[in-house]
Amino acid sequence: MGLSSMASSKVRDPGSAQEKEWGVGKGKMGICAKMIRKFPCLVSRTFCNVGREDPRRMIHALKVGVSLTLVSLLYLLEPLFHGVGQNAIWAVMTVVVVLEFTVGATLCKGFNRGLGTILAGSLAFFIDFIANESNHVFRAIFIASAVFLIGTSATYIRFIPYIKKNYDYGVVIFLLTFNLITVSSYRVHSVLRIAQERFYTIAIGCAICLFVTLFVFPNWSGEDLHNSTVSKLEGLAKSIEACVNEYFSDSSSEIREDKWSDDPIYKAVLDSKSADETLASYASWEPRKSRYCKFPWKQYVKVGVALRHFGYTVVALHGCLRTEIQVNFGFTIIVTPKAVRALFKDPCICLAAEVSKALKELANSVRNRRLCSPSILSDHLHQALQDLDTALKSQPRLFLNPTTDQKHNHAPPPHPSSLLALAAAAVASKGGQKPPTTTTTTTNNSNNNSDNVAMPRTKTDTSALLEWKSKKDNKEGGERRMLRPQLSKIAITSLEFAEALPFAAFASLLVETVARLDLVIEEVEELGRIAHFKEFRPGDEVVVNCDQRPIEDGLENHLPSHGL
Amino acid sequence: MGLSSMASSKVRDPGSAQEKEWGVGKGKMGICAKMIRKFPCLVSRTFCNVGREDPRRMIHALKVGVSLTLVSLLYLLEPLFHGVGQNAIWAVMTVVVVLEFTVGATLCKGFNRGLGTILAGSLAFFIDFIANESNHVFRAIFIASAVFLIGTSATYIRFIPYIKKNYDYGVVIFLLTFNLITVSSYRVHSVLRIAQERFYTIAIGCAICLFVTLFVFPNWSGEDLHNSTVSKLEGLAKSIEACVNEYFSDSSSEIREDKWSDDPIYKAVLDSKSADETLASYASWEPRKSRYCKFPWKQYVKVGVALRHFGYTVVALHGCLRTEIQVNFGFTIIVTPKAVRALFKDPCICLAAEVSKALKELANSVRNRRLCSPSILSDHLHQALQDLDTALKSQPRLFLNPTTDQKHNHAPPPHPSSLLALAAAAVASKGGQKPPTTTTTTTNNSNNNSDNVAMPRTKTDTSALLEWKSKKDNKEGGERRMLRPQLSKIAITSLEFAEALPFAAFASLLVETVARLDLVIEEVEELGRIAHFKEFRPGDEVVVNCDQRPIEDGLENHLPSHGL
Repeated sequence: MGLSSMASSKVRDPGSAQEKEWGVGKGKMGICAKMIRKFPCLVSRTFCNVGREDPRRMIHALKVGVSLTLVSLLYLLEPLFHGVGQNAIWAVMTVVVVLEFTVGATLCKGFNRGLGTILAGSLAFFIDFIANESNHVFRAIFIASAVFLIGTSATYIRFIPYIKKNYDYGVVIFLLTFNLITVSSYRVHSVLRIAQERFYTIAIGCAICLFVTLFVFPNWSGEDLHNSTVSKLEGLAKSIEACVNEYFSDSSSEIREDKWSDDPIYKAVLDSKSADETLASYASWEPRKSRYCKFPWKQYVKVGVALRHFGYTVVALHGCLRTEIQVNFGFTIIVTPKAVRALFKDPCICLAAEVSKALKELANSVRNRRLCSPSILSDHLHQALQDLDTALKSQPRLFLNPTTDQKHNHAPPPHPSSLLALAAAAVASKGGQKPPTTTTTTTNNSNNNSDNVAMPRTKTDTSALLEWKSKKDNKEGGERRMLRPQLSKIAITSLEFAEALPFAAFASLLVETVARLDLVIEEVEELGRIAHFKEFRPGDEVVVNCDQRPIEDGLENHLPSHGL
Repeated sequence: MGLSSMASSKVRDPGSAQEKEWGVGKGKMGICAKMIRKFPCLVSRTFCNVGREDPRRMIHALKVGVSLTLVSLLYLLEPLFHGVGQNAIWAVMTVVVVLEFTVGATLCKGFNRGLGTILAGSLAFFIDFIANESNHVFRAIFIASAVFLIGTSATYIRFIPYIKKNYDYGVVIFLLTFNLITVSSYRVHSVLRIAQERFYTIAIGCAICLFVTLFVFPNWSGEDLHNSTVSKLEGLAKSIEACVNEYFSDSSSEIREDKWSDDPIYKAVLDSKSADETLASYASWEPRKSRYCKFPWKQYVKVGVALRHFGYTVVALHGCLRTEIQVNFGFTIIVTPKAVRALFKDPCICLAAEVSKALKELANSVRNRRLCSPSILSDHLHQALQDLDTALKSQPRLFLNPTTDQKHNHAPPPHPSSLLALAAAAVASKGGQKPPTTTTTTTNNSNNNSDNVAMPRTKTDTSALLEWKSKKDNKEGGERRMLRPQLSKIAITSLEFAEALPFAAFASLLVETVARLDLVIEEVEELGRIAHFKEFRPGDEVVVNCDQRPIEDGLENHLPSHGL
């Protein structure tokens, strides 16, 4: 809108000030006219989008409409009206307020409303019974003080965390009903009859709500919690893979413009706490659908906690993509040179892919309510971790370099001869002893990029290379593949600690994600046990699909709850 | 309870099975009796705690009690009752539902209620006007279809995010009022009078609520938002300092038992999103208290976003404290040796202290509504960052070390002679060229611990030491202090890249916190500009106090809102 207004005022550009004013006036009118013309279009688009995002919303709206019409019939149809009377109004009120999007929420509110009404009714009768014994003035004083006392203490009780979490609505209904009955009882003497009728109509309202919510296209909070868990798992899987790929892509060194450019996927995961808890508390009200177990809403909450825990590391990992460090404060830590990144690219990408695969497997396991594939979750992951471990271990040592005053990029590598000797010795020793882990390294395609790494300050030890070549001729093809990745490691790099810092942080966080993934796996496996997920069969693991939908927080459809 | 029951059943240990059963029965009864005896104590303690945590809760409860009593007088006092009649009940209902903890929330609900009632009333009259033209049966059908249509569309509209956020309560009231009036109009023919009376009583109820909330010990959502921002800033300040101190303390290498042992302080910050937004939306309803500007609730939300952004890095930093990496998957990355930690201890602790000081200064600035001290925010911080930078730059270089197969802890430092030469050369060059930043390093007390660092594989170059000693004799006291910290750097460490990894991650994250702190400072300074904070005077910065209270999320006192 702002852009279009600027454009239109620029296009006009009238000569005199008078014309200008007119022009501006006309321009404003034009904009107004445009707005008015656009407004219905905008409204209808918004209106349609709401339904398109989740068709259950339309169904819920229709359910409310039908329930309200049904309950109005109590008033509109002659025979029903004679039975219920004026109090039919309370049934209407009940439907408006109690009918919620999901079964759990409706049951929770219905129960609270019922309990609150009954308790308040009983207490009001008790007060009425005592007040009846006395004269008119005393009665008024008695009622007023009862209202004050109950009002104060009920409001105070609402602050108690346990009550606030579970029975707040009930307390409000209690307070309301108590006041209505007690105050009415002063003027009306057939309080018992009124209260009875009111109770019946409320019961009718609740019954209609329960029927509609349970049997007409029911929406389950438990389902929503389940789906939001699946989409969070998938979202994190995508997020971590994208993050690592971006880190090793060539364009990653560009400084990003937008300072809050956090990935919306993990943001949704991090902010999911209250949504999870609300859904879980509603899900706890829902009837069990399986013979064996209640819906394990507590375990879903635990999975959510583990996922947020995992998400915090993903955030930190995304933080490594940014080069804020250089921009702010004129601080001079250097971005990790591409050569260093390239050295670790394959094991890192491989590990991220395995983490992502594990998360997707967990998502599929939860979605299809079957146990996880044990191989995906441990073997491959462990393998990838070992590879990264090996890559890191085989990489540079840290030596003291007190030449702080020398700029790193034109500092010659000190004493190249001794370093060459070192490298030669190392290659020689490698021929004899090989770490047991390197035999498995060959499964990764780490021999693709590591050879053609362009290093700014790389010296190749020719004697070591020669030795390596002579060894190569004696070996088998399988062993050749095993040795080729080592070629890049013969390159002697002189790298300052500060230069390696950002990459070290990245690698360390990547390893940390694996540790935290372990907790997620634990919780999902526990979920599988509690919810009696079906056994894993060998063909199941292929179903790794990931749609492009945004993460549902599950609470999008939960309208704020309003009382009475 | 579980423990005590186990204990009691163990103590008894009766002989026969019969006795055992009896014993268990008695034990259970004993526990029950204990529970019943303890219950009142527990309840009263909970009851007292709620008020002790925030005395405003008690005041709010009293305010509700007084308002309810006032509104009951409409019904109880003869002259008032004759004026208002049966509809006084609606005033009671309004007070129960509209009177909220803060001014903003009450105003928001009052406005929504008023608007909803007026709109629904107008529409209902329009429907009634049309329906009146037709016969009885057609009227019933017309009313029923109107109820269905309005019910469906109003519920659908509630899903539109903008409406859901701002006017959900208004839509519910609209739906309720419309249904009540429309349905009633079928039987009652003085609908206009009823609606008028109802409107008056609702207005009376709203007026009482407004008076009580605005003039009797008012609680402001804006204040709550302000205070929660201050306590979040202070919480993060404490959290980051504690984290870095723990990292460098001797006990940090112990493996923690509890896997979710995240610091509750930053947890509160991370989960503050919805609380912030709710408070801000209520604060936007509050009348301006200053002549110059409206309460800058939008900017407080932005500060909250920046703080969460900062918090994510603090979480990652806390993650470094844990040694999960070693425990899980049998992964063999080594914890950074204490010696390496000790090398960087002082600059890191100093930087963390500066970050913490800056956060406390920001907290004090917001609390006292004055601008920040420019020196604390940039000079010291920049200084500390430079020191860490220098420390990192002056530290080890990374050389290739292809001896992956050798265990790091019994690998002899290869070619010590060349390394010694290196060190000697370095020390010699240091005498000539000093980096300009080291002159400022002396302000830190980095010469406390760096000398007595016990390194597992440390070789001291005696010639270099001698050279250093001879230099020391020629220098002034000031310069001696400058050189002493360098002593530790003469130590030649052979450290594997993998060993340095965890520390590198820690240091990198620490630097990242500074970058993110910058964003927090920006937002707080912007807040100061928008809210016209008073100028900073030189004496102001000493007020750095930090109480031990937990972080208020500001929403603890906000009871869930219930309608009608």
